Amino acid sequence: MSALENAKALIACESVTPARGPVFDAMEAMLSPLGFAVHRFTRGEGAEGSEEEPVENLLAVREGPAGSKHFAFAGHLDVVPPGEGWSTDAFGPEVKGELLYGRGAVDMKGSIACMAAAVADVPQDAGTLSFLITGDEEGPALHGTRALIDAMRQRGVQPDLCLVGEPTSVNRLGDMMKIGRRGSVNIWLEVDGTQGHVAYPHLADNPMPKMVAILAELDALVLDEGTDWFQASNLEITEFDVANRAHNVIPGKATARISIRFNDLHTGTSLAERVTAIAEKHGGTARPVISGESFLTPPGAFSDMVAAAVEAETGVTPEASTSGGTSDARFLKDVCPVIEFGLVNATMHKTDEAVAVADLDTLTRIYRRIALAAIGHEG
Amino acid sequence: MSALENAKALIACESVTPARGPVFDAMEAMLSPLGFAVHRFTRGEGAEGSEEEPVENLLAVREGPAGSKHFAFAGHLDVVPPGEGWSTDAFGPEVKGELLYGRGAVDMKGSIACMAAAVADVPQDAGTLSFLITGDEEGPALHGTRALIDAMRQRGVQPDLCLVGEPTSVNRLGDMMKIGRRGSVNIWLEVDGTQGHVAYPHLADNPMPKMVAILAELDALVLDEGTDWFQASNLEITEFDVANRAHNVIPGKATARISIRFNDLHTGTSLAERVTAIAEKHGGTARPVISGESFLTPPGAFSDMVAAAVEAETGVTPEASTSGGTSDARFLKDVCPVIEFGLVNATMHKTDEAVAVADLDTLTRIYRRIALAAIGHEG
Ligand SMILES: [Zn+2]
Ligand SMILES: [Zn+2]
Repeated sequence: MSALENAKALIACESVTPARGPVFDAMEAMLSPLGFAVHRFTRGEGAEGSEEEPVENLLAVREGPAGSKHFAFAGHLDVVPPGEGWSTDAFGPEVKGELLYGRGAVDMKGSIACMAAAVADVPQDAGTLSFLITGDEEGPALHGTRALIDAMRQRGVQPDLCLVGEPTSVNRLGDMMKIGRRGSVNIWLEVDGTQGHVAYPHLADNPMPKMVAILAELDALVLDEGTDWFQASNLEITEFDVANRAHNVIPGKATARISIRFNDLHTGTSLAERVTAIAEKHGGTARPVISGESFLTPPGAFSDMVAAAVEAETGVTPEASTSGGTSDARFLKDVCPVIEFGLVNATMHKTDEAVAVADLDTLTRIYRRIALAAIGHEG
Repeated sequence: MSALENAKALIACESVTPARGPVFDAMEAMLSPLGFAVHRFTRGEGAEGSEEEPVENLLAVREGPAGSKHFAFAGHLDVVPPGEGWSTDAFGPEVKGELLYGRGAVDMKGSIACMAAAVADVPQDAGTLSFLITGDEEGPALHGTRALIDAMRQRGVQPDLCLVGEPTSVNRLGDMMKIGRRGSVNIWLEVDGTQGHVAYPHLADNPMPKMVAILAELDALVLDEGTDWFQASNLEITEFDVANRAHNVIPGKATARISIRFNDLHTGTSLAERVTAIAEKHGGTARPVISGESFLTPPGAFSDMVAAAVEAETGVTPEASTSGGTSDARFLKDVCPVIEFGLVNATMHKTDEAVAVADLDTLTRIYRRIALAAIGHEG
């Protein structure tokens, strides 16, 4: 099966996050004939629409000879909702001109289709290959890649290197790979006061000036100046929610929220402690929720390997970037070195998401080169 | 009719703000027999419950000899809603023990009852007396005392002094009069930005730090240290309403509100200009709504007159205060010097609002002394 056929088969299975069932059937149908042992399992027992809605995951392994190297492809089969205004059926894959349209074409059913096509003619005795495929990367990700990593540990599945197929290319296939991502922490701030009437402020305790002082001090923080590989960490005030329609009432409580994207000079915990100290100094409290720690696979053998494969097939040297949002690499970094490389992200999460059919073939060849190099096979 | 009978008659007419009809019929029935020319009129053409709901007002004048002095009693016949939990019928006046219960007993049907009783035996040739009675002091006050003042100007009604019967006494009848009130202005603040994703702050323009800077600068303002007669002006941050449930979104707009209670060193306009300059310095805008300017009737002949009447009847020297919220004196100050004096305010706006029956008689005698002194009649 070509990458294009694979991509059409995956896009045709509606799989708005969290994904289960048919799209995994299609994935299993690609991998089983290639000799992969496919293990599928579902986690989560909540109602539809809740954070605990069941998620399906797939762990497929094809063992090479004893002692051979192990390379893993990782990705997600869930997609964001299509939204309105498509010129095609979002779940009816269609080639028009040079493009294949459909939700997930670049993020990231197209990439996964290339991975499956790439391994088709890698001989089994060349080394161990695996697929770590989740049905929840676009959602809360509580039972997605985290659960996959648990299953890998239970089964003794330990890759040496992992490539995540997120759409990292910006203007043309191959111009960017991600060797790291910033971490993310959201912190809820609260200041309690005593409600009262503006004409009698001595009987009230207005929490607003304290919250303003907390936020002014947080806004003035310079967390760092960036590193060789990361831009400077950034703090944004994202909410200050004291809706008080009564003009004459001093509110009794002030709540706000900040969001920090941070590089590897910090951890979610170190930042939470710093913000908490500032909040408490002004009489407030802080409640942090760490979405993900930063990760960095410093430039070296693995990134050279990816770059060489990209250059050989496209003539382009990929920039090693750490920009953008979080991805499942935030979890996989605890397993082995991880790099992200995939299709052009211009239409991801948008109406009329589409991939160049030619890019599917090129990416398949790039992925094959990476897999072969990673398991030490002479190409 | 005694003050007690008058008070019962007024309380028996349900008159939750804005007031019209029966309670004014009762008032007219008290004043007409005493020789007052009663002019009643209704303003406002909106639906029930709207800010423009019709309001009734009453202007009653009893002319003295040409060239005689003119003293006005002012007050309101509307009341706040009774709320739940009364031990009597809120609109069924009832004397239990030493107290008369009913909504408006102290704020301020009781006071108006005393005014009517006080003038009953003031001879007509002693001077000119008038009643300026509105049906909307507790509501938006758009068509209340403002409309009364218009009507007075059209009819050439120009008092020399005016006493407002608000319940100014605190612990016992006579312990406090109001010679002024602070002004009030609410100012809405807004900062426009550009919404974006926290991972790409360079593509967004977060309005929150600008709003925090505006509020921090406003909170640090020292408007004044108070005057001989006023406490210091006070600024409170009362709202900061950026409800943004999306953790990863930089909001596109920030709105907040402040409330300033100010003394006679400022005007609503001077404060609005000052706040606007600070808002604009940080890239924001300000929209002020002035609820009322401050007023002050500096201690002198009029306050001495009120104090002497209170002392003669109670032995208590009233404190000349400018504390508390706004009242209709904010409008009447443009007509003539105005002072507020009335019943004990402990139960105003509360369940089981009640007045001591004995206080009604004492207040009637105080009001009579004030009226006689104001029109220059030898008591
Ligand atoms: Zn993705
Ligand atoms: Zn009142």
